[in-house]
Amino acid sequence: MYAGKARAYTNIALIKYWGKKDEQLILPMNNSLSLTLDAFYTETCVEFDETLTEDQFFLDGTIQESKQTKKITAFLDLVRQRHQIELFAKVDSQNFVPTAAGLASSASGLAALAGACNQALHLNLTDTELSRLARRGSGSACRSIFGGFAEWQKGTSDQTSFAKAIDADGWEDELAMLFVLVDDGVKDISSRDGMRRTVETSSFYSGWLDSIETDLTAAKQAIAEKDFVKLGEVTEANSLRMHGTTLGAVPPFTYWSPESLKVMQLVREIRKNRLPCYFTMDAGPNVKILVEKKHLATLKHSLAEHFSSEQLISASAGPGIKLLPVEGSEKS
Amino acid sequence: MYAGKARAYTNIALIKYWGKKDEQLILPMNNSLSLTLDAFYTETCVEFDETLTEDQFFLDGTIQESKQTKKITAFLDLVRQRHQIELFAKVDSQNFVPTAAGLASSASGLAALAGACNQALHLNLTDTELSRLARRGSGSACRSIFGGFAEWQKGTSDQTSFAKAIDADGWEDELAMLFVLVDDGVKDISSRDGMRRTVETSSFYSGWLDSIETDLTAAKQAIAEKDFVKLGEVTEANSLRMHGTTLGAVPPFTYWSPESLKVMQLVREIRKNRLPCYFTMDAGPNVKILVEKKHLATLKHSLAEHFSSEQLISASAGPGIKLLPVEGSEKS
Repeated sequence: MYAGKARAYTNIALIKYWGKKDEQLILPMNNSLSLTLDAFYTETCVEFDETLTEDQFFLDGTIQESKQTKKITAFLDLVRQRHQIELFAKVDSQNFVPTAAGLASSASGLAALAGACNQALHLNLTDTELSRLARRGSGSACRSIFGGFAEWQKGTSDQTSFAKAIDADGWEDELAMLFVLVDDGVKDISSRDGMRRTVETSSFYSGWLDSIETDLTAAKQAIAEKDFVKLGEVTEANSLRMHGTTLGAVPPFTYWSPESLKVMQLVREIRKNRLPCYFTMDAGPNVKILVEKKHLATLKHSLAEHFSSEQLISASAGPGIKLLPVEGSEKS
Repeated sequence: MYAGKARAYTNIALIKYWGKKDEQLILPMNNSLSLTLDAFYTETCVEFDETLTEDQFFLDGTIQESKQTKKITAFLDLVRQRHQIELFAKVDSQNFVPTAAGLASSASGLAALAGACNQALHLNLTDTELSRLARRGSGSACRSIFGGFAEWQKGTSDQTSFAKAIDADGWEDELAMLFVLVDDGVKDISSRDGMRRTVETSSFYSGWLDSIETDLTAAKQAIAEKDFVKLGEVTEANSLRMHGTTLGAVPPFTYWSPESLKVMQLVREIRKNRLPCYFTMDAGPNVKILVEKKHLATLKHSLAEHFSSEQLISASAGPGIKLLPVEGSEKS
C-alpha cells in the first residue's frame, strides 16, 4: 500500500478565472490572481491499496456515490496512467469549514488530493509540477498550492499552465476577507456549466478577455505598492465584470440573489461612510469582502445588524499546501 | 398668444435604447422597439405669450426650478429657432400616474410637449416629423408618438432618426404589462449619465451593439407571428444584456436593488410553474412584467403575497399622441 496525506487551503480569486480554452486539460482562457485563506481547508488522505476493487471516496467520513466520486477517479486515473500504477485508491477527505454552508471548495479538495498523491507515490514534485497536477483535478486548485497571493498563468499547454506565488513582502498578513453567507433560493448553475455557457454564447465574453490584462496589471501593481484601495477597486470591478458576462449569455443567467445585492449595497455604504472595503463574488450567491485586518472588527460590527454571526466568517491569508503524517498506515 | 395642448402616453422598450451616438441631436447607437402603455401619460399645455419674460414650467401645478426647466427650455429654443418665434412660453404639465412612485417619464412628457407645440404654432407636422421633433426633447419620446408597438430607427442624421409604428394586427391589445414598484435605497444614476458612462467605458458595449440586430429581428418576428413566448424571451434577454453592460463600465454600476432581484426570481418561478411572463427593467430598480392579458389576474395574485396592491400597477397597450382642446385660452 502507498499512502499519503496533505492539507490545502482554499483560495478566492481577486482576478477571476472564468472560461476554459481546453476542457480536457483545464487550460483557462485568462490568467487569474488569488489570495489563499486560512479559514477553509481540506485534509485528504489517499491510500493506493491492492485489496481494493474500485476507488472509494469518503468525504467528512461518509462514502460518496459514484457521481461525487467521478472527478476524484478521473484525477486518480491521470496519476495512475502517468506513473504506471495499477491500484485502486481510498480517498478520505475532511473539509474544515466554519459551517456547513456550502463553502467546501474543490480548489482545496483537489489541491490536497494532488499533494497526498505526491507523498503516497513518492513523486517528489516541485511546487510548479504540483500546481500543474492539481490544475487537472480542478482549475483553481493549482493556485491553492501556494500561500498568500498567487497568479495562475494560463499558458498554452499542460506543461505551461500553472500558478506561481506572488511575493507581497508580507503584506498579505495585513489583509482579511469576510465571508457573508446569504440565503440561496437560486437554483445553482455550477461554475463549470456557467463558464461554458458564457464562453460559448455570451456577447460579452470577448470584452471580458480584453479587460483582463489591464485588471491583472493593476492588481499586481497594487500588491507591489501595498495599495489597498487600488487592489480593492480592481477586485470589485473584475468580479462585477465576470458576473456581467453571464447576463449576455444565451440564455442569460445570474448567480446573484436579492441578499447578494443587499451585501453589495452595504459594502458601498460602509465604504462611503466608514472604511475601505470591497466585495467579490464567485459562482454562487455568497459575498466575500476584502478588508484590511485593522478594520475587520468594525466591518463585522457594521454588518452584524443585518446578518447573524453564523453568516459572517472571517479569514486571513493562509499558507500553501502542507504534507501531513499518515496516521495508522505504518503497515506499508 | 399661441396655445396648444396634447396628451402622450409613456412607452416601455422591449428592445432597449442604450447609448447615444450624438448627444446633441440625440441620435441613438441602436434601434429600439417599444410598447406604448395606457396607464401612464402626460398632458401638457404650452402657451407662447408676449407677456412672459422667461419660460415657466409647471409640473403637476407646481412651478419648477431652473434645473428642472433646462430640458424644457432647450426644447423650446429648438422650436423657436426652427420656426422663427421669439416668445417665451408657459408649459403646464400634468403627469397621470397611478402613484407618485417616480414613474413620471420624460418620454410621455416630451412627446406631449412636442404635440402641444405642434398645435400651438400650427406646424402641421406629420407623425414622422413629430417623432423626430420629440426625439430632440428626450430620445425615447420619439416612440410615444405612436400607440402599440413602435420601432425607433436610429438613422444617421436628425432627418433620418425617428420612430415608426409596427402594425401588430391588434395583437397588442391581448398583452399587458405589470409594473412592480420596489423600494429603492439606491442612489440613482440617470439613464443619460448611465448610458454615457457605458458607451465611453464599458468593455461590453460593443457586445451589446453586436447583439441588437438579432434581438430586433426576433422581436419583430414574434410580433408578426403573435408568438408571446418568443417576444417575452427576447425582451427579458435584451434587458438583462443592457444591464450587463453597466457591470463592465469603469467604474461599474447597477440599477438593480435587492428587491429587483426578488421580482426577477419570482417571475422565473411563476413562469416555470404557472404561466408565461417575462421581466424587463430600465434605468431604475422597478421591474415591468410582460404578460398576456388573460393571465394578468393570476400573475397579480401570485405576486400579491410579496407586494402590496400599491406596488402592483397594471397597464395595457396605449394609443398614440392626442391633441386636446386648449381650455380657457380663447383669447388668442
